[in-house]
Amino acid sequence: MKKLADIGLIGLAVMGENLVLNMESKGYTVSVFNRTVERVDHFVNGRGAGKNFIATHSIAELCASLERPRKVMMLVKAGKPVDDFIDQLLPHLEPSDIIIDGGNSHFPDTIRRTKYVESKGLLYIGTGVSGGEEGALNGPSMMPGGSPAAWSAVKDIFQSISAKVEDGTPCCDWVGEGGAGHFVKMVHNGIEYGDMQIINEAYQIMKDMLGMSADEMHEVFKAWNEGDLDSYLIEITRDILAYKDENGEPLVEKILDTAGQKGTGKWTAVSALDLGIPLTLIGESVFARCLSAQKEMRVEASKLIQGPKVNFTGDKAQMISDLKDALFGAKIISYAQGYNLMMEAAKEYEWNLNYGGIALMWRGGCIIRSVFLGDIKKAFDKNPNLEHLLFDPYFKNIIEAAQSGWRRVCAAALSNGIPVPALTAALCYFDGLRTERLPANLLQAQRDYFGAHTYERVDRPRGEFFHTNWTGKGGDTASTTYVV
Amino acid sequence: MKKLADIGLIGLAVMGENLVLNMESKGYTVSVFNRTVERVDHFVNGRGAGKNFIATHSIAELCASLERPRKVMMLVKAGKPVDDFIDQLLPHLEPSDIIIDGGNSHFPDTIRRTKYVESKGLLYIGTGVSGGEEGALNGPSMMPGGSPAAWSAVKDIFQSISAKVEDGTPCCDWVGEGGAGHFVKMVHNGIEYGDMQIINEAYQIMKDMLGMSADEMHEVFKAWNEGDLDSYLIEITRDILAYKDENGEPLVEKILDTAGQKGTGKWTAVSALDLGIPLTLIGESVFARCLSAQKEMRVEASKLIQGPKVNFTGDKAQMISDLKDALFGAKIISYAQGYNLMMEAAKEYEWNLNYGGIALMWRGGCIIRSVFLGDIKKAFDKNPNLEHLLFDPYFKNIIEAAQSGWRRVCAAALSNGIPVPALTAALCYFDGLRTERLPANLLQAQRDYFGAHTYERVDRPRGEFFHTNWTGKGGDTASTTYVV
Repeated sequence: MKKLADIGLIGLAVMGENLVLNMESKGYTVSVFNRTVERVDHFVNGRGAGKNFIATHSIAELCASLERPRKVMMLVKAGKPVDDFIDQLLPHLEPSDIIIDGGNSHFPDTIRRTKYVESKGLLYIGTGVSGGEEGALNGPSMMPGGSPAAWSAVKDIFQSISAKVEDGTPCCDWVGEGGAGHFVKMVHNGIEYGDMQIINEAYQIMKDMLGMSADEMHEVFKAWNEGDLDSYLIEITRDILAYKDENGEPLVEKILDTAGQKGTGKWTAVSALDLGIPLTLIGESVFARCLSAQKEMRVEASKLIQGPKVNFTGDKAQMISDLKDALFGAKIISYAQGYNLMMEAAKEYEWNLNYGGIALMWRGGCIIRSVFLGDIKKAFDKNPNLEHLLFDPYFKNIIEAAQSGWRRVCAAALSNGIPVPALTAALCYFDGLRTERLPANLLQAQRDYFGAHTYERVDRPRGEFFHTNWTGKGGDTASTTYVV
Repeated sequence: MKKLADIGLIGLAVMGENLVLNMESKGYTVSVFNRTVERVDHFVNGRGAGKNFIATHSIAELCASLERPRKVMMLVKAGKPVDDFIDQLLPHLEPSDIIIDGGNSHFPDTIRRTKYVESKGLLYIGTGVSGGEEGALNGPSMMPGGSPAAWSAVKDIFQSISAKVEDGTPCCDWVGEGGAGHFVKMVHNGIEYGDMQIINEAYQIMKDMLGMSADEMHEVFKAWNEGDLDSYLIEITRDILAYKDENGEPLVEKILDTAGQKGTGKWTAVSALDLGIPLTLIGESVFARCLSAQKEMRVEASKLIQGPKVNFTGDKAQMISDLKDALFGAKIISYAQGYNLMMEAAKEYEWNLNYGGIALMWRGGCIIRSVFLGDIKKAFDKNPNLEHLLFDPYFKNIIEAAQSGWRRVCAAALSNGIPVPALTAALCYFDGLRTERLPANLLQAQRDYFGAHTYERVDRPRGEFFHTNWTGKGGDTASTTYVV
């Protein structure tokens, strides 16, 4: 009798290929299928040769090759392909079988699909998988959510293939019901956009304001990676800056400066707007990619419009040290904003999120992995009800210490015409957060003046609304009666 | 025989009440209806007494009271109430009758409703109406779109009630098909959020950094309103700062600093994210309202977290002059970003927008009305294909002249811990736009490093994609094959 596979995978592109090699290396037998079926044979005769893979050439064959409860994981393009494969799979599966979506699906789709698959008597998991090509092969961060009853059946496989932190703890745990896994993965991706953008801004300041070479910047990132900023993205930036092309020149300088995006950063920003949470650093990071993509417009503008001449006269070593503070301060703000968003989402969608556990899942394996996330885990260990990351004494102290350098960096960049949208957005949020009295009193006066929108008063309880007839003309009808 | 009305209105809240008074004052007879019908009698016996209004107490009665083609305008809460009234109206209307939505509907709803009402043989208009309570009464800015065949039937009424600019030109013209009118109104509202936010930031700098009193700030806004910044929002800010409460104290200082919002600013930001347009000033303005609403969190943060002591040692008069430049520079950027968004939307939705005409519609009557909009009109008169507002010589010159002061304002605010998210976001966009080489080359290298996302090269034609095996490990499979 032919051996059955422990799990099946649909989609042998870069993520799928590496993820199944990872599973196989942990002792699992994996059935593989791909819509373009030639790719199945190419894989099992190539990187998969001599390993415990079962090549299948149809959905029926794939499902027939699996141990029960069957576990079929899709790593296909988010959107319609996921719905299509679910409908193709359902006739070949039975109650208690589990369909797993490991792609970058939008969380409302995962909420919907979980309900749909459960309505057919089966179980569903939507899991974030982060770490890219290398992570998929050597241990990704995994953020599964969906049908809670499915967790026990996939826990061993998921945790064995996932990244581990120093003490062997897997960077994979149950996130929550419905779309919680993909929501947390979405926020992860938004934070990834932010971390990349602030590194990009530091690079531009070093290159354009301080006139540093790629090799000099490589040394700075190398040093940063051995301190508080120790993280995967700082590490690969270090390596990218050292990478020379065939002419011995830095390859990074040959690359076109138009950023692509796959949409998950945008989703995070939209979700923040929907939930009313100020996610400014990530928002600016998404917009920075949009502006980079308007390359022709920028080239024309650069010829037409005169900015200041760069004239940095300060201490270069001090500015590099300030830059480190700026990166660190902005990074804390970005995570604080991301956590603020997750907390609001948990209220809105009635998820019981484990905030410390999320930091642990992100601690290793994924693109945003860093030593820093260990400190976030500690902050939630100390106070599971921590309302804002800056209310934790550790983060409060380090951001207070970082602010002077951070302010100097932003002021110098703005004076010299170097765009730093994310570093300044984060600093303005930091200042806004610690401002007891923002100017929104004037804004409410303006809204009441032109639209009779009413306002509350500082000397009256919340929930009492006042309207002033500012001009002495017009009616006394307040806009709250706009609902006819 | 009873006289028939020229137009009917549903929804006698603040906007509807003032708008019908405006119509009646121009010689039109208006039938009025309200869901809470007591309000109809309250109105015709109150502010509407002795005027040409027909009180109606049912939808049937309302429709029966109208000249053909019947024109019924709804000024009700956006969302389901609009759909509900459309369905209530349809049985009482005939082909060529016109349903008009004058509320703040979301443009995709207007696209859908136009199709729906047209499918029943009737015509539909979704029109932006701006100007608040006072504008509705004395002449609003109106931005109608929908069924082009409806325009001739409503043009006279709309243009007679709308605001006029100096030479008598009405601030109302046909915007375009489907949802174009509500889209342009949405962008107007987003710009309104931005204009208000930068005024708020200037106010906070004057109050908290320069230590100015409400009376002193009143004088500054009064002076500003007589120059390039001459606009409704500067004018009402001037008046608000002078308004004293019963104790002779500035009322604005008694108002709670938690901003409300009705969602149209958020829609504008989401639309920009969807279309990939960097609408950073408005985005930050929406987020600033969100942060203002987190009042309790801010109060706690203000107690816990230490910022810099405000220490402004410069020339106060110079800083006020710089502030004016900062406001003007940021304002130009905000409108440039808004126009960039409308141009992208016109491509996406296949609208033929009249960009100069839009500036003219906003020139008077609405909340963002200003002398400045006349200059935008001129820029599009000179070059109807103007690709970016800063490519117009007038705007290029004034923003170049404004930048020094603007940079000094932002640097001083960031150094002193005063949050200026919109002023700095605009400055960073200005610098990003005129930067031929942004750091997105590093970003693309990072994306290719961890996700095999590929990149383009500066020394190769666009559209050729490269992948580097940065680590010497892993596969050569590029992520473009992710689509299985």
